[in-house]
Amino acid sequence: MRVDGQPRRTLWPADGQDALYVIDQRQLPHRLAVERLDSVPAVLVAIRDMWVRGAPLIGATAAYGLALQARVDGCDAALQAAAAQLRTARPTAVNLAWALQRMLRRLLPLPPAERAVAAWQEAAALADEDVATNQAIGRHGLALLADLARRRPGPVRVLTHCNAGWLATVDWGTALAPVYQARAAGIDLQVWVDETRPRNQGASLTAWELAQQGVAHTLIADNAGGHLMQRGLVDIVIVGCDRVAANGDVCNKIGTYLKALAAREHGVPFHVAMPLSTLDLSLPDGLQIPIEERSARELTHITGRTAGGDVLEVQLAPDGCAAANPAFDVTPAAWVSGLITERGLVAARREALQALVERPA
Amino acid sequence: MRVDGQPRRTLWPADGQDALYVIDQRQLPHRLAVERLDSVPAVLVAIRDMWVRGAPLIGATAAYGLALQARVDGCDAALQAAAAQLRTARPTAVNLAWALQRMLRRLLPLPPAERAVAAWQEAAALADEDVATNQAIGRHGLALLADLARRRPGPVRVLTHCNAGWLATVDWGTALAPVYQARAAGIDLQVWVDETRPRNQGASLTAWELAQQGVAHTLIADNAGGHLMQRGLVDIVIVGCDRVAANGDVCNKIGTYLKALAAREHGVPFHVAMPLSTLDLSLPDGLQIPIEERSARELTHITGRTAGGDVLEVQLAPDGCAAANPAFDVTPAAWVSGLITERGLVAARREALQALVERPA
Repeated sequence: MRVDGQPRRTLWPADGQDALYVIDQRQLPHRLAVERLDSVPAVLVAIRDMWVRGAPLIGATAAYGLALQARVDGCDAALQAAAAQLRTARPTAVNLAWALQRMLRRLLPLPPAERAVAAWQEAAALADEDVATNQAIGRHGLALLADLARRRPGPVRVLTHCNAGWLATVDWGTALAPVYQARAAGIDLQVWVDETRPRNQGASLTAWELAQQGVAHTLIADNAGGHLMQRGLVDIVIVGCDRVAANGDVCNKIGTYLKALAAREHGVPFHVAMPLSTLDLSLPDGLQIPIEERSARELTHITGRTAGGDVLEVQLAPDGCAAANPAFDVTPAAWVSGLITERGLVAARREALQALVERPA
Repeated sequence: MRVDGQPRRTLWPADGQDALYVIDQRQLPHRLAVERLDSVPAVLVAIRDMWVRGAPLIGATAAYGLALQARVDGCDAALQAAAAQLRTARPTAVNLAWALQRMLRRLLPLPPAERAVAAWQEAAALADEDVATNQAIGRHGLALLADLARRRPGPVRVLTHCNAGWLATVDWGTALAPVYQARAAGIDLQVWVDETRPRNQGASLTAWELAQQGVAHTLIADNAGGHLMQRGLVDIVIVGCDRVAANGDVCNKIGTYLKALAAREHGVPFHVAMPLSTLDLSLPDGLQIPIEERSARELTHITGRTAGGDVLEVQLAPDGCAAANPAFDVTPAAWVSGLITERGLVAARREALQALVERPA
């Protein structure tokens, strides 16, 4: 995707293979801050403190974290300890564990002397595959949007929650990949962007990246989606996901559940862009997914830019106000119109998912 | 209700009957700012710019606005012009039109020389009646909460949206009046406070006034309510309303609709505290209620307190980001478990509402 007109990924290795560059997304939309991560602790902080976020990007970043470890000390114990440490950074996203597991599977059978080079190659391969996966998701989702475009005049009105765009992945995004491909195909689009409290990923990230790609969009409060669907102003909802259970239940950013419920009520198609790495067949249903509880401060305080250009935090709630901050919720499979995967559209049903993963790629 | 332990109303006339004191609620929770309004234009600004908000408080403030007009020039044309001007300040709340209409009906038949005194008395009566109304709503709602308290151990977990508390009325509140009466009756309570984007009335007003009354409460993102209901953590939803149509459709703060939908899905009782002045029998159903579209800036910017104690506005969204900001939505009557009025609980049904208003008080 483009930033100021130049194609960029959201993470890239240093030429000397001794560090990883990422965007500190906490600074957006006010500043594009590129940070250099050169150790496992640095990668851990970047994931835990959400410099990088979005299930696919977390996975790729963690993979490079293991590559950084292999460079310093690639013995079994050191790699396993680093993986264990990185895995704790965010408990809900399954890609994190998936990416680390894939790295260990590749590295542990190798002689230690070969691990550093192999680790770097494997992390790069994982990142490249994420890009290819998202492009494929984009193609399959494009078909949905093209179909809607044929049904009525005017722009296809897409509602999205949180950020499952370029910034949540290595490139292209998951939920937004269809939007970008539709735009490239000349389809007229209008995206409703949920601001996505409490971390405002919609207002700060989705709105920013849609603007960078020239896609028409309108920011709304998370509260507005039901009203817009009731008035017939939404043609399709597309969101990403952090983990999908074997039965098709979808764990995604808090608030997704309410949008899915409203979409069902009004017959609005509700689609979830899901790289297969996000599918967790070990979980029979979504209610068993651990829900990360984040800091109360995400609700009581907020960061923004002053008229003078300073980026600072201000307090919104009364002093000492208690707050609960579940970061994700679980949308029942029955409310999901379809899962958009790199292998095509699939029903959010146990048998369909099982068949898809068993099918040769 | 109490502020710093002292009983206070949200508005009160100056001793000389030449001005009205209100709280500039935009300064809360950071500062309790009392402002003196001494003219119709000053009252208009206070309503339009939301120094005061909440349907009942808007009505009482507007009534005092006409009293201020009557003091300067009480001729028919001047009173009607002032009422017309004040009516435009907020298009959705029916109490505003109702209070102004009531004032004109009382004043226009009188000789002009008697209008100034009568206007002041009528505004005071209207304010006193609001207090009595809310106390009655509190009593009827208390019965609901007491019933829930008997059903299971632990606190009764109430979810509320926006601020329909003391600060939205002259005293007691509508949706929160049952909470305050239940607390006085020794019922253990826990209130989930929706922060209520984009203006954050929950975080800044409801959390503040519950803390002042010593009611246990937890701030949540508007996105969290569905998840909490899914997990069985909400016993009842109580909200206020800005206008109720003849069929029982409820117009209230944007986002109410999504909570009502989730409550229906999970069998959580969803109650609306409704002073009868909020009922608009001239509207057959809620979809005909005009929905106020407010400034995009309410979404793209936010006001809070810095660590240094300054209250200032910061920008959240990218420069030039478009935003849509419908301030209210309409919840279908069928999803409303009951309307809590000053005359008791009533079903959100055309026949029941008609019978209630026709019944002698």
